[in-house]
Amino acid sequence: MRTPPGMSERQFRQAVDRFIGAVGAGNVYTDEADVDLYRDPYTPLWGQEGERIASAAVAPASVEEVQAVMRIANELRVPMYPISTGRNLAYGAAAPAYSGSVVLDLKRMNRILDVDQVNHSVLVEPGVSYFDLYRHFQENNVRMIIDTPDPGWGSPIGNSLDRGGGYTMAHFRNHFDAHCGMEVVLADGTLLRTGMGALPGAKTWQQYKTGCGPWIDGIFSQSNFGVVTKMGLWLMPEPEAYMRGTVYVPRYQDLHRFVEILNYCENVKLFTGMPSLYSPLLGIVPMSQLADSMAKPPQLTGQQAALIAAAELGYSPELEAYALREGVPYWGLDMPMYGPPEVIAAQWAAIKRRFSEIKGATFQDGEVIDFPVSKADEARVHLPEFGITSLRMFSIISRSPLSPVAFSGHMGLSPIIPRTGAAIIEANQVFQEVAREYGLPTLGSFTLPLLYWERAFIFIFSVMFTRDPAVDAKTVAGVRALIRIAGEHGWGEYRTPPVFQGDVMAQYSFNDHALMRLHEKIKDAVDPNGILSAGRYGIWPAHLREKKQ
Amino acid sequence: MRTPPGMSERQFRQAVDRFIGAVGAGNVYTDEADVDLYRDPYTPLWGQEGERIASAAVAPASVEEVQAVMRIANELRVPMYPISTGRNLAYGAAAPAYSGSVVLDLKRMNRILDVDQVNHSVLVEPGVSYFDLYRHFQENNVRMIIDTPDPGWGSPIGNSLDRGGGYTMAHFRNHFDAHCGMEVVLADGTLLRTGMGALPGAKTWQQYKTGCGPWIDGIFSQSNFGVVTKMGLWLMPEPEAYMRGTVYVPRYQDLHRFVEILNYCENVKLFTGMPSLYSPLLGIVPMSQLADSMAKPPQLTGQQAALIAAAELGYSPELEAYALREGVPYWGLDMPMYGPPEVIAAQWAAIKRRFSEIKGATFQDGEVIDFPVSKADEARVHLPEFGITSLRMFSIISRSPLSPVAFSGHMGLSPIIPRTGAAIIEANQVFQEVAREYGLPTLGSFTLPLLYWERAFIFIFSVMFTRDPAVDAKTVAGVRALIRIAGEHGWGEYRTPPVFQGDVMAQYSFNDHALMRLHEKIKDAVDPNGILSAGRYGIWPAHLREKKQ
Repeated sequence: MRTPPGMSERQFRQAVDRFIGAVGAGNVYTDEADVDLYRDPYTPLWGQEGERIASAAVAPASVEEVQAVMRIANELRVPMYPISTGRNLAYGAAAPAYSGSVVLDLKRMNRILDVDQVNHSVLVEPGVSYFDLYRHFQENNVRMIIDTPDPGWGSPIGNSLDRGGGYTMAHFRNHFDAHCGMEVVLADGTLLRTGMGALPGAKTWQQYKTGCGPWIDGIFSQSNFGVVTKMGLWLMPEPEAYMRGTVYVPRYQDLHRFVEILNYCENVKLFTGMPSLYSPLLGIVPMSQLADSMAKPPQLTGQQAALIAAAELGYSPELEAYALREGVPYWGLDMPMYGPPEVIAAQWAAIKRRFSEIKGATFQDGEVIDFPVSKADEARVHLPEFGITSLRMFSIISRSPLSPVAFSGHMGLSPIIPRTGAAIIEANQVFQEVAREYGLPTLGSFTLPLLYWERAFIFIFSVMFTRDPAVDAKTVAGVRALIRIAGEHGWGEYRTPPVFQGDVMAQYSFNDHALMRLHEKIKDAVDPNGILSAGRYGIWPAHLREKKQ
Repeated sequence: MRTPPGMSERQFRQAVDRFIGAVGAGNVYTDEADVDLYRDPYTPLWGQEGERIASAAVAPASVEEVQAVMRIANELRVPMYPISTGRNLAYGAAAPAYSGSVVLDLKRMNRILDVDQVNHSVLVEPGVSYFDLYRHFQENNVRMIIDTPDPGWGSPIGNSLDRGGGYTMAHFRNHFDAHCGMEVVLADGTLLRTGMGALPGAKTWQQYKTGCGPWIDGIFSQSNFGVVTKMGLWLMPEPEAYMRGTVYVPRYQDLHRFVEILNYCENVKLFTGMPSLYSPLLGIVPMSQLADSMAKPPQLTGQQAALIAAAELGYSPELEAYALREGVPYWGLDMPMYGPPEVIAAQWAAIKRRFSEIKGATFQDGEVIDFPVSKADEARVHLPEFGITSLRMFSIISRSPLSPVAFSGHMGLSPIIPRTGAAIIEANQVFQEVAREYGLPTLGSFTLPLLYWERAFIFIFSVMFTRDPAVDAKTVAGVRALIRIAGEHGWGEYRTPPVFQGDVMAQYSFNDHALMRLHEKIKDAVDPNGILSAGRYGIWPAHLREKKQ
């Protein structure tokens, strides 16, 4: 039997017995084989010293059971690590940030508590997955669109708390922004509700976010200060149709104005879907197109590949000359639109007008896809843009340019940079230096950012791990170097797996880590025994603070 | 010389001398005549026992001076109450929540630090007003739209922290939602930055909101836990044009489906401006139309007025028969659209299609107004919908149906209710009972909610005060009763002046006030001497908690 640090087997056995009393014997896992299911299959530290491994897991079925478990843990000082479905493989999965923690597995809390088709929201428990929600909508003919990440097995609550993103309109694909109201169990078992939910008998818990007085919800994202047991989510009602418009521009330097016009169009809501930036010339395909047979991934000629290999930061005069001669656009941009066909047509006409100022810009009208999506269309579109859950991306990544080597797992290395062409070029220069030094192939070629978030660019590098300790050690060193060097340039990661959370948070060091010191003050006040999510995002309870794994 | 509670004049004089050392003699106000300028001119308790009055005011000019002042206050236990411009008259203005507090007046911190026309954001200090920003934009030909409340003399930072609203697109008119990144001075003078600003040399402070780890910004709204000294705000780039489309429906019961279709259209972004709900039949005019000569306020006939007076909850068979006979619509709805004219035309066509399912629905096309707005158009439109600051609303309220009696001030009584027709009718029934009992004329007639926020309705009753203590005492009792009765129905206020903050927060009592207990824990941790914003939104420092004014 594994035990939490500092607890004897006898002490831990007492705690386990009390947990069993609270949730039943079948819902407390202590056998190594069971607990191993909570290991992070994508960890770069598999089987090594630093791998984060749970001591046990407890799976309550109700809020009352969560409260009971937390009261026991608080009394006996058992470190707890809550997960919803624990399926976010590239960001740490179900493994705790502090080895020896007991995983609080909320999978059994899987009730869809409310579906409101007049105000377009749901109220769910943390064990509800995107798949569950989609199935429920299908079975009950609910005409609302779920904003799902590529893999649909995750939890809307978990993904919102982890500040994940999806693929529909900006204010839905920012999953934390799309939440409205929480129920939370604090470390000592106290139950509270946020927003309008703090009113007993609240009528607008899922309708108005911020309640009255200070708005507390944000501190519960990333799960340092409480266990979220219910959450409201705003959804998009089913639109009439979808169309993806594409703009191409011919020259390297067009990138700058291209991004500026994109920003204008998105910020004034000329289109509302998630844009994708790519390069037919450089063979850079947007993530969404990988899963999508409507898109036409570029075929590189031998000459083109050779010119790309010789280019610096995606540019050489010869490469540009090739592009102009052969009519291969340097840059491409997809802008998806949702709405009635006549609105989409008008938006697309206005967007074309804006981009036409770039000399040589060309346009490709997308196909108009009607909602609800037909089975035939389902087979060929990027499903999350239509609110349809799947696991298709897993098979796609494994055969894509994202996986140049055999690998056992990957992580998302995700620095956020400004939304300008200059920032793309500067970031590539910096990242490529790190890649050369540390042998990180996915950072080595010219890369374009993703556009999950309004107003910012995000690079999501899939860094591959192999379970070869020597190879992975070098990769880990490279990731740490990139986090540090990006920080020195004023670029920060927006999330990261537990192995790197300390490194990332160390970059957020303004005024001698004043923000971290505030987090620690709140930690000590809200969870004085320091039992909840120790070490997550670098926030350690007082008794472990010196150590900082 | 007034003094804070529990401080002798000698002790306070020492504190004042230290404040003078930090900010200069000309920027510390202790003369009664000066300090009286910080009284709330709209208070219902003018000159009475419970009126909240400051002891002094200090006006630092820089972050360093704010830090110095807070360090002194923290050392000497001087209660401080930060304001930006202090002009939000209906919600407490510049007067502190705890009498005897020193107002920390941030008016001298009035620098516009950054204007980004590529990513459409600004970085400002708290003393910058909407007028300042508008003037700066005009002088520098900045083509972005400021989301301003009706009176433009307030502060974008103050209004965002107070969770105020404006009149353009939903994610801009929710002023707290539109913020991106803060700089904050804590009670002990510690300086921190939130979001990406916690990275030294951050490049995306105004571009990505939530940074990494728990998102802390929300706790600083309402100013209980820190003094915000800088804030980023996202703005709308200048659209091409604006048009307000109007739908009318003929029958009382149409209200239900009317609201449902409105919700669909707004939530799927078929229009993006702030909608207004009104009633030509009942003579209910939307706030925005009061300021707007393009609108045609209804003229009630004598017969109509008599039928309205005899109707219950806005309905009688006779009144409806009159409406149908005379062709006066029961309900009206304005939906403003921003964008290129061809997009607006297509959106409006699609919206008409949706509402046409209601039998007898009629439509009125608005005039298309181009940006930038001409001087001629400025004279006849509701300026905030075009990003233009003014004080026009003050003159309008004083001659409007909102002011049936002579008054010295008013407050916004602002319960949030669900976005359904049934909720409108139920709320009116409840509010009218309170109005009858307490003689609150503005709650007495059938009222329609405002639509500042997506997904929820908000009633904003302008409750009038007179400076006649007997009259005002009855009004105050009525407001307290309505807050309590609304709470019993699951409807909560979203903000309120200090006089009623304790009453409102008492309604948010789920699980024995668990949320308030959490606020208090954080208060004790972050501001252990309890010097900042004591009593604001019912959050008292430990040493005053028993008292709870």
